[in-house]
Amino acid sequence: MLSRVRSAVAHLVSSGGAPPPGPKSPDQPEATSLLPAVPPEAPGSPPAKAGSASGSAAAPAKAAEARASFSRPTFLQLSPAGLRRADDHAGRAVQSPPDTGRRLPWSTGYAEVINAGKSRHNEDQACCEVVYVEGRRSGSGAPREPGPGQGLCFYYWGLFDGHAGGGAAEVASRLLHRHIREQLKDLVEILQDPSPPPLCLPSTPGTPGSSDPPHLVGPHSCWPSQKEVTHDSLVVGAIESAFQLMDEQMAQERHGHQVEGGCCALVVVYLLGKMYVANAGDSRAIIVRNGEIIPMSREFTPETERQRLQLLGFLKPELLGSEFTHLEFPRRVQPKELGQRMLYRDQNMTGWAYKHIELEDLRFPLVCGEGKKARVMATIGVTRGLGDHNLRVCSSSLPIKPFLSCFPEVRVYDLTQYEHCPDDVLVLGTDGLWDVTSDAEAAATVDRVLSTYEPNDPSRYTALAQALVLGARGTPRDRGWRLPNNKLGSGDDISVFVIPLGGPGSYS
Amino acid sequence: MLSRVRSAVAHLVSSGGAPPPGPKSPDQPEATSLLPAVPPEAPGSPPAKAGSASGSAAAPAKAAEARASFSRPTFLQLSPAGLRRADDHAGRAVQSPPDTGRRLPWSTGYAEVINAGKSRHNEDQACCEVVYVEGRRSGSGAPREPGPGQGLCFYYWGLFDGHAGGGAAEVASRLLHRHIREQLKDLVEILQDPSPPPLCLPSTPGTPGSSDPPHLVGPHSCWPSQKEVTHDSLVVGAIESAFQLMDEQMAQERHGHQVEGGCCALVVVYLLGKMYVANAGDSRAIIVRNGEIIPMSREFTPETERQRLQLLGFLKPELLGSEFTHLEFPRRVQPKELGQRMLYRDQNMTGWAYKHIELEDLRFPLVCGEGKKARVMATIGVTRGLGDHNLRVCSSSLPIKPFLSCFPEVRVYDLTQYEHCPDDVLVLGTDGLWDVTSDAEAAATVDRVLSTYEPNDPSRYTALAQALVLGARGTPRDRGWRLPNNKLGSGDDISVFVIPLGGPGSYS
Repeated sequence: MLSRVRSAVAHLVSSGGAPPPGPKSPDQPEATSLLPAVPPEAPGSPPAKAGSASGSAAAPAKAAEARASFSRPTFLQLSPAGLRRADDHAGRAVQSPPDTGRRLPWSTGYAEVINAGKSRHNEDQACCEVVYVEGRRSGSGAPREPGPGQGLCFYYWGLFDGHAGGGAAEVASRLLHRHIREQLKDLVEILQDPSPPPLCLPSTPGTPGSSDPPHLVGPHSCWPSQKEVTHDSLVVGAIESAFQLMDEQMAQERHGHQVEGGCCALVVVYLLGKMYVANAGDSRAIIVRNGEIIPMSREFTPETERQRLQLLGFLKPELLGSEFTHLEFPRRVQPKELGQRMLYRDQNMTGWAYKHIELEDLRFPLVCGEGKKARVMATIGVTRGLGDHNLRVCSSSLPIKPFLSCFPEVRVYDLTQYEHCPDDVLVLGTDGLWDVTSDAEAAATVDRVLSTYEPNDPSRYTALAQALVLGARGTPRDRGWRLPNNKLGSGDDISVFVIPLGGPGSYS
Repeated sequence: MLSRVRSAVAHLVSSGGAPPPGPKSPDQPEATSLLPAVPPEAPGSPPAKAGSASGSAAAPAKAAEARASFSRPTFLQLSPAGLRRADDHAGRAVQSPPDTGRRLPWSTGYAEVINAGKSRHNEDQACCEVVYVEGRRSGSGAPREPGPGQGLCFYYWGLFDGHAGGGAAEVASRLLHRHIREQLKDLVEILQDPSPPPLCLPSTPGTPGSSDPPHLVGPHSCWPSQKEVTHDSLVVGAIESAFQLMDEQMAQERHGHQVEGGCCALVVVYLLGKMYVANAGDSRAIIVRNGEIIPMSREFTPETERQRLQLLGFLKPELLGSEFTHLEFPRRVQPKELGQRMLYRDQNMTGWAYKHIELEDLRFPLVCGEGKKARVMATIGVTRGLGDHNLRVCSSSLPIKPFLSCFPEVRVYDLTQYEHCPDDVLVLGTDGLWDVTSDAEAAATVDRVLSTYEPNDPSRYTALAQALVLGARGTPRDRGWRLPNNKLGSGDDISVFVIPLGGPGSYS
């Protein structure tokens, strides 16, 4: 399965691609071809979330800079002139799908804006698709005709916030939903069968190791105690596995095809009445429902994942070299403080205690800094995502990837448990939005914008996405982008999806 | 510092001890002597939370059984006849401090009952003390006279639920608060100074490595970026360190003095207006405030800590021997299923996916079972606590301790942020209570019992503790202990503290 997706990466990164297929509807299963949709993009920008120490990651990216082309999501339908405007750091024009063109599936609203100069191009990428999943051939080996009721459709939204180059975000935006589709193929029949999922399946045809004629093993076979596995948890497992395979694919191809850099990934899958919100990184998803805010993700940063990182450094000290200590100190320890006692935290602690300073404590802490300045190994400010296989500590051979996790946290929201009105929305945003916008401010914008549009006006969600992006970007004033309260707006790339939970054209 | 506490363990376990000092009040700092309070107790009961596979832990306990004496908390002031009644599995009489004797500090209510026969003695232990902390001598080396305002008092409550013998719970109930006191000695001045805590302290006198005359290094010294450390987090760190030192002490002394078995520890420290609730194990603390339930702890079990355990097994496969796999399966894999695909979860997943069964998957899963039957290495059902240094997998040399954590999770509750009424309480209970009592049922009992007593009746919190214990124990009927709804009552040891948050005699 991996090899089937792999060919698409090779194609994508090595030469020109096929014309954009545009958004697909459920009755267009053929649109899920593995062919890439746009010309290739090689990484070409300095590290974004990766700090100044990530030199070795930036170096090969520089070599590729010259031939880097600039791409934006195909659903924006940008002309060459539009593409240049979207790439203009000075104007920072907000981009949305054209009002006149084909709308995004599920009446989704979308808007984005490029950063104020922190990287050459917009390193965010986005994807919005309807994906058809054909069931895998049954164990008998005989091809089964796909017919009505046999396949499954899922709606898919993805935001990918790239760093240290745009390659990983670009590749993930093209391929992650295909990995999800592959993982769901095994589940097409199981998810449509209300009985508990089978714990054991026959081996797939042609797999080494399958010898006896395989049979489904029912959930109530010989073991006295067995766990109940829900249908939801199979979908969660499929999404988790897809993230892992996407990351492995980037690892395997990074040398040959320059899939440089890494990206945060925030993904929503709508399947059989439920929204699965999967987040790996520091993007954020919230539901605003009747004015109430329901968090649908949490951020993964050196601060929120401190104990996982420290535990890993403690159990595998070889990953720290002789440069880092897994202990945390409130500031860098000075050589003159040897023998004195300083506050510290280890992997088991949430509080602080004093310890006698020893020589090893003079090493740089694995986790340091606070808020947006928190870093792992003085380099990277997010601890989950895809890619980053080449990321190393500056002037060192120490790889950082072992500390990063590609696994998302997945939250499930059952759309059928609540009667949603047209003003109830799921908002996805990269950290460019949330750095300067609180959840409450976003909810206020939802209320303000949607109340000025008729409930059945299809442009209302795009207008809301634009308002959110504009509210985070601000306007140019006093040599900077500033918000109405004169605070600095976000100089980062900003991308926002608005998904109506009960609006026109949504689920049936 | 460790050696100072160690002598007390030796004394406690090797020979008879000093007479019970009884509850102490803040003006009795001398009562915090390290001398043990009651005659020694050697472990003598079969494993409780440890399953049948924990044979090697039970074996040495058996040898000690003959000379095991039975002890209950000194504050119960039990006569020899009362001690026999408290040890009677048939009658299961509820025990509380006598109404006529000295009351527990803070008007605390307490009640306990022995199990229905699962272990020879009641393996729960409890402690309720007022502890005076004298500041450590200053760095100048000159002894400083303790005077008013220089020391600190904390109130302390501890519940210890033993398993595989009563030794660890007994030792912890005698010594853990002394470890906490030791840890707080450094903080006596710091906690009473409203300015931010110093990040660096001079070395303690006589410590190797302290050469230059030490000076306090203020929080705003040379490093540009430093973390703010709160006073609360110092107390949290002190409690965490105390748990660790208590556990290390048990490890060092387990061979010489038969500190066998392990215990869950649920501890509350009241200091300077705040309640610090520290939990390691499956006991539970809730606040019932104006009818509202505020959870103050969470349980640590193979299910809630699955991912931590699996990650450890994955990173340190030598800890699994050739007997266990870190992967989780919904049931035991059969040899005939080799090559088929079964649902599994690894350390990164919360969902389930199918994998091809290989030979290694036939090993026993590190984590298996559900609910109260969940086990680590088929042996133990709690994943945090003190002791268990000798616990090994049955018919194997594999130690289980590496998978257990002695670190509590500490939650902080600020008593000054809310005007509490006499009916607002903090309830601590071992799992014997919570196995058959929901939080809501406990809150209903709080309301029902306290409403029948005058707000200033000092016996109301003991009556409430007794009602909670009785409600979980039930009455003997149909060859078992049964609740009014005819469901089985708890056959486990049950211990309950009720701490009034705004009642008579509480904090000033």
